Amino acid sequence: MARKRRFYNGQSRKAGLPPGTLVHIGTARSGGAAIDVTVYTPDTVKEFRPEGFDQCIQPPPRPAITWVNLEGLQDVELIRRFGECYHLHPLVLEDIVNTTQRPKIEDYGDYIFIVARMISFTPEQGIETEQVSMIVGPNYLLSFQAGTAGDAFEPVRERIRSGRGRIRTMGADYLAYGLIDAIVDNYFTVLEGMGELMEDLEEELAQGPTQEILKRIIALKREIIFMRKGVWPLREVTAALERGESPLISATSRIFFRDTYDHTIQVIDGVETFRDLLSGMLDLYLSSMSNRTNEIMKFLTVVGTIFLPLTFIVGVYGMNFKYIPELEWRYGYFIIWGAMLAIAAAMALYFKRKRWL
Amino acid sequence: MARKRRFYNGQSRKAGLPPGTLVHIGTARSGGAAIDVTVYTPDTVKEFRPEGFDQCIQPPPRPAITWVNLEGLQDVELIRRFGECYHLHPLVLEDIVNTTQRPKIEDYGDYIFIVARMISFTPEQGIETEQVSMIVGPNYLLSFQAGTAGDAFEPVRERIRSGRGRIRTMGADYLAYGLIDAIVDNYFTVLEGMGELMEDLEEELAQGPTQEILKRIIALKREIIFMRKGVWPLREVTAALERGESPLISATSRIFFRDTYDHTIQVIDGVETFRDLLSGMLDLYLSSMSNRTNEIMKFLTVVGTIFLPLTFIVGVYGMNFKYIPELEWRYGYFIIWGAMLAIAAAMALYFKRKRWL
Amino acid sequence: MARKRRFYNGQSRKAGLPPGTLVHIGTARSGGAAIDVTVYTPDTVKEFRPEGFDQCIQPPPRPAITWVNLEGLQDVELIRRFGECYHLHPLVLEDIVNTTQRPKIEDYGDYIFIVARMISFTPEQGIETEQVSMIVGPNYLLSFQAGTAGDAFEPVRERIRSGRGRIRTMGADYLAYGLIDAIVDNYFTVLEGMGELMEDLEEELAQGPTQEILKRIIALKREIIFMRKGVWPLREVTAALERGESPLISATSRIFFRDTYDHTIQVIDGVETFRDLLSGMLDLYLSSMSNRTNEIMKFLTVVGTIFLPLTFIVGVYGMNFKYIPELEWRYGYFIIWGAMLAIAAAMALYFKRKRWL
Amino acid sequence: MARKRRFYNGQSRKAGLPPGTLVHIGTARSGGAAIDVTVYTPDTVKEFRPEGFDQCIQPPPRPAITWVNLEGLQDVELIRRFGECYHLHPLVLEDIVNTTQRPKIEDYGDYIFIVARMISFTPEQGIETEQVSMIVGPNYLLSFQAGTAGDAFEPVRERIRSGRGRIRTMGADYLAYGLIDAIVDNYFTVLEGMGELMEDLEEELAQGPTQEILKRIIALKREIIFMRKGVWPLREVTAALERGESPLISATSRIFFRDTYDHTIQVIDGVETFRDLLSGMLDLYLSSMSNRTNEIMKFLTVVGTIFLPLTFIVGVYGMNFKYIPELEWRYGYFIIWGAMLAIAAAMALYFKRKRWL
Amino acid sequence: MARKRRFYNGQSRKAGLPPGTLVHIGTARSGGAAIDVTVYTPDTVKEFRPEGFDQCIQPPPRPAITWVNLEGLQDVELIRRFGECYHLHPLVLEDIVNTTQRPKIEDYGDYIFIVARMISFTPEQGIETEQVSMIVGPNYLLSFQAGTAGDAFEPVRERIRSGRGRIRTMGADYLAYGLIDAIVDNYFTVLEGMGELMEDLEEELAQGPTQEILKRIIALKREIIFMRKGVWPLREVTAALERGESPLISATSRIFFRDTYDHTIQVIDGVETFRDLLSGMLDLYLSSMSNRTNEIMKFLTVVGTIFLPLTFIVGVYGMNFKYIPELEWRYGYFIIWGAMLAIAAAMALYFKRKRWL
Repeated sequence: MARKRRFYNGQSRKAGLPPGTLVHIGTARSGGAAIDVTVYTPDTVKEFRPEGFDQCIQPPPRPAITWVNLEGLQDVELIRRFGECYHLHPLVLEDIVNTTQRPKIEDYGDYIFIVARMISFTPEQGIETEQVSMIVGPNYLLSFQAGTAGDAFEPVRERIRSGRGRIRTMGADYLAYGLIDAIVDNYFTVLEGMGELMEDLEEELAQGPTQEILKRIIALKREIIFMRKGVWPLREVTAALERGESPLISATSRIFFRDTYDHTIQVIDGVETFRDLLSGMLDLYLSSMSNRTNEIMKFLTVVGTIFLPLTFIVGVYGMNFKYIPELEWRYGYFIIWGAMLAIAAAMALYFKRKRWL
Repeated sequence: MARKRRFYNGQSRKAGLPPGTLVHIGTARSGGAAIDVTVYTPDTVKEFRPEGFDQCIQPPPRPAITWVNLEGLQDVELIRRFGECYHLHPLVLEDIVNTTQRPKIEDYGDYIFIVARMISFTPEQGIETEQVSMIVGPNYLLSFQAGTAGDAFEPVRERIRSGRGRIRTMGADYLAYGLIDAIVDNYFTVLEGMGELMEDLEEELAQGPTQEILKRIIALKREIIFMRKGVWPLREVTAALERGESPLISATSRIFFRDTYDHTIQVIDGVETFRDLLSGMLDLYLSSMSNRTNEIMKFLTVVGTIFLPLTFIVGVYGMNFKYIPELEWRYGYFIIWGAMLAIAAAMALYFKRKRWL
Repeated sequence: MARKRRFYNGQSRKAGLPPGTLVHIGTARSGGAAIDVTVYTPDTVKEFRPEGFDQCIQPPPRPAITWVNLEGLQDVELIRRFGECYHLHPLVLEDIVNTTQRPKIEDYGDYIFIVARMISFTPEQGIETEQVSMIVGPNYLLSFQAGTAGDAFEPVRERIRSGRGRIRTMGADYLAYGLIDAIVDNYFTVLEGMGELMEDLEEELAQGPTQEILKRIIALKREIIFMRKGVWPLREVTAALERGESPLISATSRIFFRDTYDHTIQVIDGVETFRDLLSGMLDLYLSSMSNRTNEIMKFLTVVGTIFLPLTFIVGVYGMNFKYIPELEWRYGYFIIWGAMLAIAAAMALYFKRKRWL
Repeated sequence: MARKRRFYNGQSRKAGLPPGTLVHIGTARSGGAAIDVTVYTPDTVKEFRPEGFDQCIQPPPRPAITWVNLEGLQDVELIRRFGECYHLHPLVLEDIVNTTQRPKIEDYGDYIFIVARMISFTPEQGIETEQVSMIVGPNYLLSFQAGTAGDAFEPVRERIRSGRGRIRTMGADYLAYGLIDAIVDNYFTVLEGMGELMEDLEEELAQGPTQEILKRIIALKREIIFMRKGVWPLREVTAALERGESPLISATSRIFFRDTYDHTIQVIDGVETFRDLLSGMLDLYLSSMSNRTNEIMKFLTVVGTIFLPLTFIVGVYGMNFKYIPELEWRYGYFIIWGAMLAIAAAMALYFKRKRWL
Repeated sequence: MARKRRFYNGQSRKAGLPPGTLVHIGTARSGGAAIDVTVYTPDTVKEFRPEGFDQCIQPPPRPAITWVNLEGLQDVELIRRFGECYHLHPLVLEDIVNTTQRPKIEDYGDYIFIVARMISFTPEQGIETEQVSMIVGPNYLLSFQAGTAGDAFEPVRERIRSGRGRIRTMGADYLAYGLIDAIVDNYFTVLEGMGELMEDLEEELAQGPTQEILKRIIALKREIIFMRKGVWPLREVTAALERGESPLISATSRIFFRDTYDHTIQVIDGVETFRDLLSGMLDLYLSSMSNRTNEIMKFLTVVGTIFLPLTFIVGVYGMNFKYIPELEWRYGYFIIWGAMLAIAAAMALYFKRKRWL
């Protein structure tokens, strides 16, 4: 699995720059940035995709909710204009473009800044995470994503369009819930993907331990380390939203955030369980492996030990002493063969009874 | 032990759906859903099993307590009607049919929503858990279970019928206590089942380590991981009930919930003890195994080492040099036998004294 | 060490019974129950042992303190009468006869219910614990014990009789302190017993590792697991008594409970230290064992390796080629002996210098 | 990697001295101490480097901010004069010159005393840390560093000079933020350096385990231990600054300190991830190593086991019995060769099928 | 290292005695008890050593501070008279003479009772701890020590005599700080001693692993276990003093106790670092050891494997078949030597290329 980029490449490029300096750290979206604007009321939905961001998209007043989604974060200038337009704190902008943040929530009074991480998993690539940032205002929501890993928000957009559920009748906080819920729901898919891998591993391990299995167990353990990094802090984020300390979060939405909190805990539970199970598999692997080797060595040593005295005996009668009485016997050769067979049989029996063979 | 279904199969089917969408995740009860209604006052008990749920079962006012128990959760439409009838939050309904919840308690003001997990254990199947959901209202209690693992609530029902204990004179909160207590009491049975398995394992391990025992130790360790997942969060649930923050929980019932909390702690204690004991057994297994192998290898190597010089000696007198004085001796052959026996004896003695043999 | 009964036997017998049902779980005292009543004031002491419990023993008013001690808990009917007499909650009675409780403290307003565990240790039997329950009222104290392990309260009774210390001048809370202190003091004896065992183990381990020592290390580790279960929760009990939230605990007694808390911490400290030391011993055992085996194997392999080339050489001159010039030499045999001795010496030297021998 | 100086050399030199005694513990800066004074207002900047510190540098009133940076801490007399001039507590001075402090923050009312540790990492030297102390007053900031590891504050100074960012318009608390941020930013560079080393290690480990790799894994684990010591306590420092309990920290600056807190958490996260990954690598190393050795031993033993019966057979026909019928056969020699080849082939086949070869 | 006395010998002697019974547990000071009295004001110092303690030493009023130091705790009667004189609680006296207390602080209103442990370390004896008890009153301080390990308080006494620092101008709380600081400063010396031992160990381990090194690593780990027991609880003691909840601790002294708290944390930090480093060394030892053994075994097995086919070949030509064509060849012997050398070389080459040799 590719891993190099995980070791904080780029983060140090910012050292020495004044805070609030916008430096894009992460993968650029091919094809430039794309802005999707959705404005909806309980009864209407309007969607459009402006060419640039030359002038501010002013969100109409409540009950209209405006959702601006930006994919592609490499255009730092664009982000700056977003910041000016919606009066965002420079540190918020900095965190949006530096896509190495851990999940967090920050209350800036007029708006809440939320960072979460979308997680995808393929057996080949392992865990990949992509930062999703959100600004939740009283009647608008801005979302930012690199957009290289597909759009997880399409089902939410679909729900707004169709008017299914209560999404159109509620505020920006409920929309934020919808997006975070979509992200967390996705974690279950990741968990299932890893679960399938674990099942395969278990089955193969039951066949017998191989070096290949070991490598995969340890690789999976690594992936779990990276998964945990993305999921654990989200627990604090959803807990803060559930407590709803900001007036931007309505009491009704808090119940929904409690649900998300619950799901996050469930995911964490799953991750921790996987971790424990993998430790168990590692234990099983290591002892199976050593058992197997020991079995083989034991078998071979037993075989060797049976032949040693026999080789000694034939050596004895290969000696050239002038007078070795047995050599003169008529059936000496056959007698000695009989003796040797008897010795071998006795030893095999002895080893068998001791369960060494 | 069967394990496949444990890795979150199904959970991801819900990704992208609006919150509150009812998707049944879990095992369907064969024979469809069954509703059991019990209405009791201190003096009377009425039990009936309605055919469907075409119209709401309205609970009569206090002191009557109405308990509606639903077995079989696959009929999503039925659950929806329950929800409408008792004004349940869509998220509650969602959690009832998605039977992968961890134990939790949620206060919705008019009612408390409790999720617990029934646990059963057989040496063949390992730990199996089944979600039990409860809605505790002021004068009614709704309970939901998949119903595939038998009914653990029968003793409670029996107690209501017979009027034994105080159950008929108290409220829905006490009934909730009775049901949770039945679930927790069941954990002790599970613990004893696992305890017996551990005793067997210990005895067999004392006989000598085998690969089979190792597999069972590790399998039991796994089961404990799953057991913990079901039991630990219940501690928070019972603690919340003991604190009795909701007016739906009376002071009298709180004392009983304290008892349940106590039992939960005892179960957790037992689970953790088992875990520690299993770790000890694993240690013992691993070192016994390696000791045993080492003993055998040592024995065989010692035997080999005794024969090596002897084989060398007979080789010496098998050489075809023209002039080897010993070969000419009259009793050379016997002398050499004597010498070899002496060498072998000396080596055996040496190894014995060094405790290698 | 006997272990069977530790795995929760009996606990599940209660499943399905209504709460407050008295089921005795534990060992019965041979000879039936025995009641000891002690009534004392600063100036007087009266002790008697009533035949049965046909009528309530009414405690006289302060400053008299009444201590009723019951040994033998198998007579469930007797306990029930106790409960009626002193107005005890059914759950309290249930916990008294079900002697598998962990140490705890419960405030019932009129009285405090305390559960502690007496611990005894013998190298043969390992850790044995016996539940001691106490009801601390304003002017009376009820204590319940199975009474199979001897009476640890005799020194306290002796102190009351003799009037030594302040026990006669203080309340039932101080008497409770005296009893708990007696239990905790006993833990030190247990710790010393285990300490002696550990010293013996250490000394023997220093002699050399044996499979026997391993078994004892792991058995001791197990005992520590059971010891911890009895001691850790007592910390919370004594901490609660030290905080003295109930009016039944006087400020003067709280200072004494602080002392007991301190002792409990000291015992926990000791237990944890033993645990760490045992882990260290296990490490030492395992590496000593593997070192020892490796040493032996190395020695034997080195010996084997020295003889292999020699055996090859004598084989060479045992060949029957028509023309092997060395065979014709006058002193060929002696030359070859010299060569072989030289080779063996060189190898031995080489191995010695490499520290393999 | 050099390590000696890490074991608290020097700390004990202070034993027995009265508190507040200034004893320099750490490395002296070659070339003596250097003082850099920067006085700035939103519009002006003045920088100068006084020769000594014969008279106090009195900070002009707000909005001017005075930053006095001292490099080189060996001149204890100079520090004392600093202390007198700015009315610093003797314990503060003691901590400034004893450069073995762990990161901490202490509020002295008139000023805040902050200790952080600059960290540098080279594969050769490992982790090196240098103490940076700061006194944050209402309109001045004093910073102290040993100055042996280069000046990490130059970018901040540059920003003041150029007037970039908001630094010139804000108070001494924001300057403190700038300096701490510079230190924390530097940690990312360190993390990347370690990350590169880990990648190299991983790649080499994938090639095959060597003793050299093991040493480097364990050395890196050590470095992480030292890194943690410098970073973990900084979390509490930045958390205290974010909470902003002192009036010396303005609300505006608190948002920036929250950012620093975030970065610190990110660094800690990275360090902990490295730790987990290294543990995984150690596991992989150990099992790979033992696998490899087992593979070789198995191969050799198999080869040996094939030759043992063959050697026995040729021994048989080297016996000198008078009557061994096979020896008389015309093609005996060739038959025996055939038999031996057959036996060897059969054994090889058997071992191959059992996957031992 | 001597260890026996560490396993709680003597503690159980107190079982059954009423609380407040004075039983001396610990080492007696040879030469009896010694009392040192120091009375000082900002301007004067008076020191004297009374013969006995027949009448109370009444501390003169503030600003005079009276420090009574008692060395030797075996004279229980003397302690009792101390107790009467200064109105000390019986439990305090009990803890003073039972020198197995863990560090703690207890507020008795009129005075504070502090227990700390002096720690000394020698490579031969390991960690030795000695209990130091202090009673801090408004204008007096009583200190109690066994006095077998030398007097760590001499530097403080010297400071009082000379009037250096602020000690003469401050209260009994500051004197307590001075004494505790002297104890904690001493811990740094202990840490350095252990640090040196660890450096030695590391260097020797780098030379190659020996059984001796293992024993020392494990012994050092043990010492660290005992060191932790003495240091960790002191953290709570100093934290309580820093918070200064008692009016006996002045605000000025609290700043100094904060410093001591800091030092305690630093010591704990050092102890934990040592622990981690020792674990790393143990890992390194174990894998080096197993690597080394594996290397040797591999080498020997390779050598053995080279000789096995050769021995087989010479065996072949030692057979006595009537017709073995090679035997008749003129240069058969030399050809076979050539063949054997070729085989040996080929095998050596093969093993070398596979990196087995």
